[in-house]
Parts: sequence; structure tokens; C-alpha cells
Amino acid sequence: MTPLRPVPAPVTVGILGGGQLGRMLALAGVPLGIRCLVLEPAAHAPAGAAAEVLPAPYDDRGALEELARRCSVVTIEVEHVPVESLAWLADRLPVHPSPEVVAVGQDRLAEKRRLARLGIPTAPWADAGELEHGFPAGTILKLSTGGFDGRGQARLEPSASGAEVAAALEALGGSAVAEEVVAFDRELSIVAARSPVGEMAVYPVVENRHADGILRESIAPAPGLSPSLQDEAVRLVVDLMDELGHVGVMALELFEVDGALLANELAPRVHNSGHWTIEGAVTSQFEQHLRAICGLPLGDTGIRGPAAMMNVIGTEAEPGDVLAVPGAHLHRYGKEPRPHRKIGHITVVGADERQRVERLATVRAVVGRAEVRPASSP
Amino acid sequence: MTPLRPVPAPVTVGILGGGQLGRMLALAGVPLGIRCLVLEPAAHAPAGAAAEVLPAPYDDRGALEELARRCSVVTIEVEHVPVESLAWLADRLPVHPSPEVVAVGQDRLAEKRRLARLGIPTAPWADAGELEHGFPAGTILKLSTGGFDGRGQARLEPSASGAEVAAALEALGGSAVAEEVVAFDRELSIVAARSPVGEMAVYPVVENRHADGILRESIAPAPGLSPSLQDEAVRLVVDLMDELGHVGVMALELFEVDGALLANELAPRVHNSGHWTIEGAVTSQFEQHLRAICGLPLGDTGIRGPAAMMNVIGTEAEPGDVLAVPGAHLHRYGKEPRPHRKIGHITVVGADERQRVERLATVRAVVGRAEVRPASSP
Repeated sequence: MTPLRPVPAPVTVGILGGGQLGRMLALAGVPLGIRCLVLEPAAHAPAGAAAEVLPAPYDDRGALEELARRCSVVTIEVEHVPVESLAWLADRLPVHPSPEVVAVGQDRLAEKRRLARLGIPTAPWADAGELEHGFPAGTILKLSTGGFDGRGQARLEPSASGAEVAAALEALGGSAVAEEVVAFDRELSIVAARSPVGEMAVYPVVENRHADGILRESIAPAPGLSPSLQDEAVRLVVDLMDELGHVGVMALELFEVDGALLANELAPRVHNSGHWTIEGAVTSQFEQHLRAICGLPLGDTGIRGPAAMMNVIGTEAEPGDVLAVPGAHLHRYGKEPRPHRKIGHITVVGADERQRVERLATVRAVVGRAEVRPASSP
Repeated sequence: MTPLRPVPAPVTVGILGGGQLGRMLALAGVPLGIRCLVLEPAAHAPAGAAAEVLPAPYDDRGALEELARRCSVVTIEVEHVPVESLAWLADRLPVHPSPEVVAVGQDRLAEKRRLARLGIPTAPWADAGELEHGFPAGTILKLSTGGFDGRGQARLEPSASGAEVAAALEALGGSAVAEEVVAFDRELSIVAARSPVGEMAVYPVVENRHADGILRESIAPAPGLSPSLQDEAVRLVVDLMDELGHVGVMALELFEVDGALLANELAPRVHNSGHWTIEGAVTSQFEQHLRAICGLPLGDTGIRGPAAMMNVIGTEAEPGDVLAVPGAHLHRYGKEPRPHRKIGHITVVGADERQRVERLATVRAVVGRAEVRPASSP
């Protein structure tokens, strides 16, 4: 006879943002008995397929009060939410990531300064507002807040004058960081999680391939990565999470340059480069994030096999074609197709590296995409 | 540039029944862009976590009309739905399994007769209404329709008179099949799927351990099963699906007796003994069923590793304890705990058989359950 135990209380997690990340968080929560309550200003919320949606702006006081009243913990699925809303919530219930960490992630300048203070190497950078003139070829201005997926960026000519820099800044519409474009060998990222008591779980480093500033493919684990770079990446993300007192999943984007790592940017949330974990790892990043923020033990980050994730961008793939590829897993986000918009992803897991390569090639052919080669431009 | 394609039309699948099977079907549908619309008479529907629920009786004409109007295809998650409702729907849209197959699955006598006609071996049986007196020790009466999880059964003494049989039948409250209890070595099952064009996908045979007539554990693949019995089980379920023209997932429960197989019963739906496929196989039985009934290509049924599934029955397991077991996956159904009620399950997948055994033992200890030994009583 099983001893009688109290029924574990149902847990409701509030999420600011109801896009595909919220959708996958909500799906991961259902089997754990975790219900998600999503605050989403847009008319349509992909997360609504498995979560209750509060359709309201992120600073709607009534909606925030409802989150505070009904949730055990609040998290985010997009970084660009008002820090004030998170701070208001954090006075009332646990909020992971904390408003402070979100603020750092929202502001490239603050992020660069924080990375520098932690001794985490990055490409050379400067506050664009403090630039004089004459800087290395390929210097790029990135809007400090609000730009993503290749938007909010401008490239500077080495000969640009102070006035031209000022004009570029004006066009971007806000403060910016000037980054020297490094000739990297490839882009990598590492996804990890930290629990409230400091337990850590780290996934293998993955290789990411971008085009037009949008992630196209992630290859997991990153092929041919030296064990010392894997260890170094783990050290960087663990240090970062510890220093920030972060709780939940965090992704750190990296450049591999001549056998060394440079940090590019951090995201204090589940990350596109971690989508492969749904089928490719024992515990998905989505379940891991929920475990972490709910104070549950973290899950096994071991891989089930070499995996690859391809984003479906702009135009839907035909489900029947994708599902005919052996071992292909389709994830549609329920979003209206629109150019440059991430509307789904496809993951393949191989028994070995060769099969992973073959299956990814088949998926590319089915979806009608060319292979994206690593390119030394962020 | 990706060629422009028409957006694949959203598919809505109607499900009669909104319990845990409907819940897991709905969860599997979301990433495929398949929304589920569930008809559930009970006040609370676990499937509601990821599906829209129509709270109405199975024979509610308005609700059936709504299913017919909004769905592309209708399926079931419980067998005991009115065949008349399915037939009404089948006049209007595809229904898988067909009303005819559901009728066979609902009626033990019809099922036994069908198996006999297909030459599929079963334990000796008779229509209890035609029993005289004097029958083998351990003959058991099973209510022909409505009994499940050990309910609706009565054991007959060999010395029972015709009047005693009649009294037992009266107490059961309906027609019944009299089955000779065979001294089986173990209980097995095989889960498979068939598409509308006759494509087949078959999972490995699993070993099932029952107690009090309720499935406690499934071990996948069945340890030490001879290749010839695996092949024989595949042949039986494939023949059965072909003969019935079945579309969707089907489970066939079997007894292993002296190196041979006897069919016990069939279920024309996703099955408890297939829950391990969510993490243990490349394609889960839930996604497989949706693929089959929606006419999508069937998925890979290969295993990711030796797996075991344990039902959580009557009392909730403490999530933190379960999730602390390496590689353990928790599935809570969102149902009120009640004695003998299936309210969740836990799956472990090992890198090898040894690890599977270890992990299952750890889960048993955490949940406070003794190991269930194979017992020669159905």
C-alpha cells in the first residue's frame, strides 16, 4: 500500500510573452502539472495552444495584479519587456530571471560592461556615443536596446567622420555599442540552467549558422569542438550565472576565433539555439527552465544523439514532406507566415554524426533551403 | 530564396473522450499544427490543458454537429463511446477507428469471434450465456461490454452449477465471455499503427505487469523476447489491422505461454502500454496516431534506449522526488487522486538494460511501490 501523501499543489507559472518560446514552455509544463498563464499584448499568442492567455500590454496593472495573485513564480520568454513590470512583480512573488538580469540582457552596453567586469573576453567594443573618428574596418553599430535578428544595426566605414557616426546613431534611434567585427571561425552558443540553490546543468556547446542576422541552423554538439573549448564555455556560462545570481535557463552566444572563445551576447531565457534539446537531449531546455524556476531538481542534459535544428523562416514547410524524412521532428508555431519570421523549426537526431549530416541534408532539400556556411560576419 | 508555397491548412482533430489519452494526443498535436477538439461528458477534462473542450454527453446532437462542422477527422481515446455517435459522424467525415472496429473492441464476445475467424490464437473461451456446467479450474467470467481495469469480472469454481453461473452473470449485469485462465509466463503487448493507404509502423513488443487487474509497469522492449515471438506478434497485429481496415494506433495484448503467443484483447486506440514511446521511441504513439488518422507519413518506431513505464495509481508521487531520479520523466494527468485511479505515469530510459533496471528500481523506491512480479492471472 502506498502511504498517503498530500497532493502536490498545482503550480501556475506566469510568462511575459506568448510567442513560440512561451508555447514550448507551456507544452513542457503540462506533464509536470505546471500550468502557464501568459501575458501577451499581441492579438494572437502561439502559447495559447497550451496556456491561458491574458491579452494585455506588459504594463497593464490589472493583468500584472492577476499574475501576482494567481502565479507561484513569473518568468519571461522575450527580453524586451518593461523592467518596471518585472520589478513590480518581484516585490510580490519570485521573478526569474530577476529584473536586474533582464535589464542587463536588454542593454548591449550594460551587457558588455558586465562581461568586461567578469573578465569574460569579447570582441573590442566601445560606447558609440563616445566614438571620435577613425576606427577599425568593419566596425558595426548595434542599437543598445531593442534590436534583434539583424535589425537595429549599421556598418561604419573606417573613414567615417564623427558627424557620420552621429548620423548613423541618429538613424538607429538610440544609444549603441560599436563593435569591431572579428573574423571568427564559427559561431557557437552554450545553454545552461541554474536553480535557486545554485545547482547547475549545462548542455553541450552547439554551432550556429546565421544568414541575414537570423539563426538558420544549430548543430549539436558543435562538430569537432576541442574539449578545452567545451570546458571553457561551461566555465564562462557558469561564472556568468553565478555572478548574476541567475535562476532559470541562460544562453551565451560565442565566437570561436583561432582556438579561443569570445562572448557575443547573453540571453537570460530559453533560446533558439537550444530547441534541439526537445528531442536531442534527455531533458529539454523548456522543462529545464520550468524545473529551475519552480525549485525542482534539474534534469539530465545528456544527448540522445547528434542533433541538428533548422528554423523554418518566412514560409511554411509542407508537413507531409518534413515528416517523411526519417527521424525528423516538426515544430510549427501557429504563426502567420511573413518574410524573415521564425514560424517553426525542424529537428533531426542521428544515431551518429554521419546520419545527422544526411538527415539534415534531406530536410534542407525538402524545405528548399541551401546549406548555410559559417560566415565571419555577425 | 525559398519558393512560395500555400500555407498548409490547419487541421482540427475531434476526440471522443478528454482523459489522459486525449491530453497526450493534444500535446502531441500542437507542434504538428494539429488542434484537438475534445468531446467530454465529465465536468473535468485532463485534455483541456492543450485542447478545446466541448462539455457534453457523447450522444449530444449539437456537440456532434459541432465536431462534424469543425473537424477534419474524428477519433476516440476511450472505447466505451456510443457506436451510434461514431456512425453518425462517419456519415459526415472520416472517423478512425471506424465505428465497426470500435464495436468489435467494445464487445469481448465479438472480439473473440473476430480473433478466432482470423486464426489468431487465444485462451479457450465460450459465451457465458451458453455455458452448462463443469468447466476447467480458474474459468473467469468477463463482462462482454463495459468492464475494464479489473472491473466487471467474476471467477467461477469448477464445481459451479448452471444456476451459479447464471447468478454470477446476473451480478455482472450483462452478457459475458467465459475464459479459461491460462498459466501464462508473462503478459506482453504490441502497439502499431496503420495509415489510410496501408502503411504500417510497429513498436517493439513490451512486457506488462499488472496487479489487481490494473497495469502497473511496462518494460520496453520486453526483456529476453525471442526474435521469432517478436516477429509473430508483428504478424498478428499487422494481420489484424489489415483485416479490420484499421486506421490509427492499435494495441494487441498478448500472453506468452510456453514460447507461444495467445491474444488476450485488442484496443483500437493509443494504449497505456505505449506511454513509454513518448521518451523511449523516436516517434511517440500519440504523434503516430495523429499522423495516421491525418494521412501523414508514419514516424520511426525505433527505440532511443531500453525503457520502463510505471503508472502512478491512486496517490500522487511527489514531483521533486521523481524528477531527482536521473533520466526520469514525469507525466501528471491533472486528475483528482482516487483509489485505483491512474493519475500519472513515470518513464525511465536507460543507456542499456542495466541502467533501465536501476532507474526503474529507484523510481519504485521513490514512489513507494514494490516490484510487481509477473503473475499467471489476468
